[in-house]
Amino acid sequence: MMPEERIHQLMTNLLDSYRTEESMIKIEASGQLSREAIIRIIGDLRRIIFAGYFSEKPLRWDSLEYYIGNLLEQVLYTLAKQIEHALPYHNNDGEPLPSATELSDIFAGRLSAIRSLLATDIEAAYDGDPSAFNRDEIILSYPGIFAIMVHRLAHELYLLGVPLVPRMMSEYAHSLTGIDIHPGATIGHHLFIDHGTGIVIGETAIIGNFVKIYQGVTIGALSTRGGQLLHSVKRHPTIEDHVTIYSGASILGGGTVIGEGVVIGSNAFITRSVPEKTRVSVKNPELQFKLDDKMHNVEFVQDNAWFYTI
Amino acid sequence: MMPEERIHQLMTNLLDSYRTEESMIKIEASGQLSREAIIRIIGDLRRIIFAGYFSEKPLRWDSLEYYIGNLLEQVLYTLAKQIEHALPYHNNDGEPLPSATELSDIFAGRLSAIRSLLATDIEAAYDGDPSAFNRDEIILSYPGIFAIMVHRLAHELYLLGVPLVPRMMSEYAHSLTGIDIHPGATIGHHLFIDHGTGIVIGETAIIGNFVKIYQGVTIGALSTRGGQLLHSVKRHPTIEDHVTIYSGASILGGGTVIGEGVVIGSNAFITRSVPEKTRVSVKNPELQFKLDDKMHNVEFVQDNAWFYTI
Amino acid sequence: MMPEERIHQLMTNLLDSYRTEESMIKIEASGQLSREAIIRIIGDLRRIIFAGYFSEKPLRWDSLEYYIGNLLEQVLYTLAKQIEHALPYHNNDGEPLPSATELSDIFAGRLSAIRSLLATDIEAAYDGDPSAFNRDEIILSYPGIFAIMVHRLAHELYLLGVPLVPRMMSEYAHSLTGIDIHPGATIGHHLFIDHGTGIVIGETAIIGNFVKIYQGVTIGALSTRGGQLLHSVKRHPTIEDHVTIYSGASILGGGTVIGEGVVIGSNAFITRSVPEKTRVSVKNPELQFKLDDKMHNVEFVQDNAWFYTI
Repeated sequence: MMPEERIHQLMTNLLDSYRTEESMIKIEASGQLSREAIIRIIGDLRRIIFAGYFSEKPLRWDSLEYYIGNLLEQVLYTLAKQIEHALPYHNNDGEPLPSATELSDIFAGRLSAIRSLLATDIEAAYDGDPSAFNRDEIILSYPGIFAIMVHRLAHELYLLGVPLVPRMMSEYAHSLTGIDIHPGATIGHHLFIDHGTGIVIGETAIIGNFVKIYQGVTIGALSTRGGQLLHSVKRHPTIEDHVTIYSGASILGGGTVIGEGVVIGSNAFITRSVPEKTRVSVKNPELQFKLDDKMHNVEFVQDNAWFYTI
Repeated sequence: MMPEERIHQLMTNLLDSYRTEESMIKIEASGQLSREAIIRIIGDLRRIIFAGYFSEKPLRWDSLEYYIGNLLEQVLYTLAKQIEHALPYHNNDGEPLPSATELSDIFAGRLSAIRSLLATDIEAAYDGDPSAFNRDEIILSYPGIFAIMVHRLAHELYLLGVPLVPRMMSEYAHSLTGIDIHPGATIGHHLFIDHGTGIVIGETAIIGNFVKIYQGVTIGALSTRGGQLLHSVKRHPTIEDHVTIYSGASILGGGTVIGEGVVIGSNAFITRSVPEKTRVSVKNPELQFKLDDKMHNVEFVQDNAWFYTI
Repeated sequence: MMPEERIHQLMTNLLDSYRTEESMIKIEASGQLSREAIIRIIGDLRRIIFAGYFSEKPLRWDSLEYYIGNLLEQVLYTLAKQIEHALPYHNNDGEPLPSATELSDIFAGRLSAIRSLLATDIEAAYDGDPSAFNRDEIILSYPGIFAIMVHRLAHELYLLGVPLVPRMMSEYAHSLTGIDIHPGATIGHHLFIDHGTGIVIGETAIIGNFVKIYQGVTIGALSTRGGQLLHSVKRHPTIEDHVTIYSGASILGGGTVIGEGVVIGSNAFITRSVPEKTRVSVKNPELQFKLDDKMHNVEFVQDNAWFYTI
C-alpha cells in the first residue's frame, strides 16, 4: 500500500528513535513480564479460591482434587515464570531473595489463609449492604470483592519482596473496578468496599478489621514534594478497627490515626488524628436557591453527611 | 517443578480449606452462572439493538432478517440457560416464576420498546453535548449510552424477578464505564449521562424523563445502619422530569424528591426535597491564596457551581 | 426451543422497530468502524512505541527491524481501513482531507515524536511518585501512562481531521483507566497523571509542560446551555507550565487561565483565572465531632488541602 521508500523512511526514523530513547524499549532481555500472563494468573487463582464459581463445568466433590491440582500446577508454573522475569529488578541492597520457584511455592502455601480472610470480607459485604441478594451474588458480581481478592494476593507477593508483579496485579484490578489499592497496604479482616469507583489506598496505609469504605475515598499522603526520597517513609494513615468512611472523604498523612469505631462522614477532609468512637461530619457547604433567577428562601434543614449508598 | 510431596501438602491444605469455608465454593450444582456468558449475551443484544454497528460485516436489508434471527436465537438460548441457573436463588416467599425459557421469551418481547427508549437517550446525548460529533459517534463510543443500554436490559430482567443475572449485567457495565446503576432503579426516557465515571444510582431510585447526570453524582441512601432489614424499603431519592445534576453532587434518602425542572449545582449535598424549578448551587468553599508563602489577596469573584463538561 | 410462531412474531416486531428507529441501525454501508479493530490498533502501536515490553517473545537488536516493520505494516493497514470507514463522516464545510492511506501514512510519520513526548511523561511519573519502583513498572502498569499514550496518538488523528476514530480510541482508554481526555485537548510534555480515576479533560483545554494532575480532577466547561451551538468555541481552561492540580479539584470555563507554577489544592472549585506562582487552597469545610451522640470539642487544626497520594 505504501511505497517501499516511504516504509523504509518510517523504519529509519523509528530505529533512530529506539536508539535515542533506549529506556523505552526492552531488548536482549532473557524474558519479560507479560500483562496477559498476570491476568491469567489472577483468573486461575480466582478459580482456585472460589472453586466452582468461575469454572466452565459444574464441579463434583470426587473430581475436585484433580481440577484444583491441575489449576494449581498451571498457575504456579506461570507465576514462577513471571517472578523469574521480575527478579532482576530486585534491589540488591536488601536481603537476597529465594528463587522464583521457591517464592511461588511459599505464596501457594498462603492461599488457604487468604481464603479465610476473603470469607470474612464476603460476610462483611452481606451484612453491610441491604441490596445484597445473597453471598453468591457478592462472589459473582461485587467489584469490591474482586479488588480485595487481588489485593490480598498481591500483598503476599509484595511481602515476599517480589518486584513489579504485585503492582501489575493491583493495576489490573484498578482497571476493572476503579479501586486503586497499592499492594503494600496492610488490611485486616472483614473489609467492606461498596461501589468502590475512585477509591485510592496508598502503599503505607494500615487498615484494621471491620472497616467499611465507600466510593471516592482517598487514604493518601500529604504533599511533601519529596518524590523518590520518600520511597520507604510511612506516608499514609492508620485506620483502626470498626471504622466507617463514607463516600468522597479524604484521610491524609502518615501520622494520621483514625481511632477505633470512628465514623467519617461524606466528603470530610481529614489531615489530623481522630480519637476513638468519634463521629466526624462535615458542616455541609451552604446552599443557595434561585427561582426565576431571583434568590429564593427555601427552608432546608439538612442532615449532616452520614450515609451509605447501594 | 515442585516436589511431589509439597504439591500434595498444598492440596491437602486447600481441600481442608474448601471443607471449612464451604460457602465460598460451588459444588455439585446442576449448572452455574457464568460471567463470560453474561458478557456474550450483552454483546449479542447490542448487535441486535444497534443492528450493523457492531457486526463484523456490513449488513444488507435483504439479509437482515437472517442475521438478526440467528443472533436472537443464540442470545435467547444462552440467556435461558443463565436464567435457569439463577432460578434456584429465587426467594420462594414471593409468587412462583415462569420457566427460564418463558422468562427469556417475555424479555425478548420487550426489545423493541427498549430500542425506542434508547433512541431517546441518543437524542438527549446529541442535544446535550457540544462535543458530540454525530449520532454514530455516540452509539459507537459513549460510555453513558452503553451503561444506559445495559441498565434498560437488566431492569427488564429485574422486573421479571430473575435473580442475580441483572446485577451481573450491571456490574459488567460498571467495570467498563465506572457508572454503577443498580438494576432496580426506575429510569424514564431521554436520560443523558456525561463522562459518567463515579456515578452511583441506588436500587430504589426513581428518575423521570429528560434528566441529565454528570460524572461523580451519587443518588443514594442515608445511613440507617439497617443492613439486610432494609432490603425492600425505598431508600433512594425520586428525581422528577427535566432535572439536571452537575458533577460531584450527592442526593440522598428515600423521602427526598427533586422537583420538576430543578438544577443541582456541582458538589451539592442534598438530603431534603427541593421544590420544582429551583436552582440549587453550592456557596463555594472559601479559597485562600498564597504567594511566596505569604497570604495573598486575589480578587476572585467566582461563579457558583453551574457547569457541565465535555 | 421457542415455538416457530413466537420467533416469527419477535422478528416482525424487531424488523418494524428497525424501520421506525432507522437512525439506530447501520445498513447498506460500504464498511464500518470496529471497536475491536481500534483496540488492536492501540495494542500494536503500544508494541511499536514500547518495543519489547508488550511482545510475546524477547526482542533482539538484530531482528528488531523485521519485528517492527511487520507490526507497522499491519497497524497502518488496519488504521487506513478504519479511517476509510470514518471519512464519510467528514464535515464537507471544511477543507477536503487527504485519502485514508495518506492520512495513516502522515500519522505514522509522527510516531517518533510521540515516543519522545512519552519519554518525558515517564520521566515525570518517576520523579513525581515516591512509590514508583522503576521506569519499567511505570511502562508496564501505570494507567496514567496508558491514558497519555492513547491521548497523544488520538490527538494526532484529531489534528489531521479524522472523524470518530480519535474519540473511539480515547473512550477505550477511558474504559480501562477511568481517565477521560477528549482527543481535542492540547497537552505539553512531562505530563504526570496519578491514579487518574475520575479525571475529565475537555476538548478545547490547553495544558502546558510539567503539569501534574491527580484523581478526580475536572478541567471542564461552565454551563451555558448552548449544546451543539458551542461546537467550536473554546469552552475549557488553559493550564500553564509547572502547574499542579490536586485530587478532586474542578477548573472550569474557556476564559480561565491557571498561571505558571500555580498549585491548586484538593477539591478547589475554580471558575476564574489564577495569577502565576499562586498556591490556592480550600478553606476546608468545618467539621463537627460527636461522641455518644453529643457534640464534642476536638482540637483539630487542619492543614489545608495540599497533598498528593500514591
